Amino acid sequence: MSNKKIILVRHGESLWNKENRFTGWTDVDLTEKGVEEAIEAGKLLKSEGFHFTIAYTSVLKRTIKTANLILDQMDLDWIPVLKTWRLNEKHYGILQGLNKTETAERFGEEQVMKWRRSYDIPAEAIASDNPRSPYLDVRYKDVPKVYLPLTESLKDNVERTLPYWKEVIFPSLIQHEQILVVAHGNSLRGIIKYLKDIPDDEIVSLNMPTGISYVFEFDDDMKLVKDYFLGDKEKIKELMDAVANQGKKS
Amino acid sequence: MSNKKIILVRHGESLWNKENRFTGWTDVDLTEKGVEEAIEAGKLLKSEGFHFTIAYTSVLKRTIKTANLILDQMDLDWIPVLKTWRLNEKHYGILQGLNKTETAERFGEEQVMKWRRSYDIPAEAIASDNPRSPYLDVRYKDVPKVYLPLTESLKDNVERTLPYWKEVIFPSLIQHEQILVVAHGNSLRGIIKYLKDIPDDEIVSLNMPTGISYVFEFDDDMKLVKDYFLGDKEKIKELMDAVANQGKKS
Repeated sequence: MSNKKIILVRHGESLWNKENRFTGWTDVDLTEKGVEEAIEAGKLLKSEGFHFTIAYTSVLKRTIKTANLILDQMDLDWIPVLKTWRLNEKHYGILQGLNKTETAERFGEEQVMKWRRSYDIPAEAIASDNPRSPYLDVRYKDVPKVYLPLTESLKDNVERTLPYWKEVIFPSLIQHEQILVVAHGNSLRGIIKYLKDIPDDEIVSLNMPTGISYVFEFDDDMKLVKDYFLGDKEKIKELMDAVANQGKKS
Repeated sequence: MSNKKIILVRHGESLWNKENRFTGWTDVDLTEKGVEEAIEAGKLLKSEGFHFTIAYTSVLKRTIKTANLILDQMDLDWIPVLKTWRLNEKHYGILQGLNKTETAERFGEEQVMKWRRSYDIPAEAIASDNPRSPYLDVRYKDVPKVYLPLTESLKDNVERTLPYWKEVIFPSLIQHEQILVVAHGNSLRGIIKYLKDIPDDEIVSLNMPTGISYVFEFDDDMKLVKDYFLGDKEKIKELMDAVANQGKKS
């Protein structure tokens, strides 16, 4: 019987999650709570008998440090950790760095929810010579500039994440029984939408809590057979509701 | 002018360094002091203007965590970290796990210094079905068993480390201006012996302190032109003497 599993984890709480600011491609660190969430995720995965032989992250430190902390709890520091820009968070354009409540006051709650939750409306783009532009960041120097976003809708994000999922992560399940993927709220939406064939207007309301493991099980033909969250169901529901309520004025 | 540099770092203090036990291939964690040493190394490398685009470690967590801590201080979490068994510490055979002072009392100080410091005399091998045997460790499952040691002399260690140095690490300097290598006292001896053409009987008394950066600079033809330790010379001398005195009875 197949034991093939891919486990998706959203990084632990970051400083800007805590400050309720749009983060996107900004390389913000984990909070102490975020570190704790990652350690807890690692402990739970270990006690449930998971064993990874490869891990994937974005090139942003909040996913890399989350993966390192999880793997360290599992005594799996030694496995390859592959880091790719394609798993990065959605690029929020000019919103990056702004507080979500302030942005709601400035642009109206409706506009902000549209930017955050519509499938295909991106925020206004930053300039390519903006100091925060990915064009100027050495970590993207080997990526064709035409691939690099200056803003993204969720649709754009999905379209840029899926090639790596289809071409690298998913096929690696042939050699690897169990795979860990640590990424971001929106890049994970893209993968989950694809795996479960979720329509555009529904995927926008899927809210991955930080530090929770979402397990996908596959049969011998690598067809998806089962998916579930690890941990206490009530608590996970509460966490998902809390993510959904971010960006409301109150 | 060439700016090509390879920086060798011995991992921060481990629990068994502290307890003065033979560690070898045992996957022992860093102490708090070891974590601090790694963070300090990262701060110093950053303040001296170093910038890595690739890093290499062994498959033992003390080097991996040291590299991760160094890179995090430098905001370089995102670079590839390649982990290889060929950079592992010397395999100490049946001595692994024993306290160096006790071993000296049991086998005599002279015998212990011979095992530790002779170039080509290995300690007695462990059995291939010993629970600690690398044959049974999943992290070595893709390594031909005939390559895996059950004990090693420094000579054996050098001969198993150099193929990876020659074939992977050193040639990667063509594409990468600056490379970080975090490894172990003995695997680093092998590399340094090779780079500086140090005779067998001299390399045994080279004592790399934990958490200190040893910089090697190369010209455009990748010929070694200069090598030096980063940091306070007096302090480094003291640290090297302290390593040399380990395993004496007093």
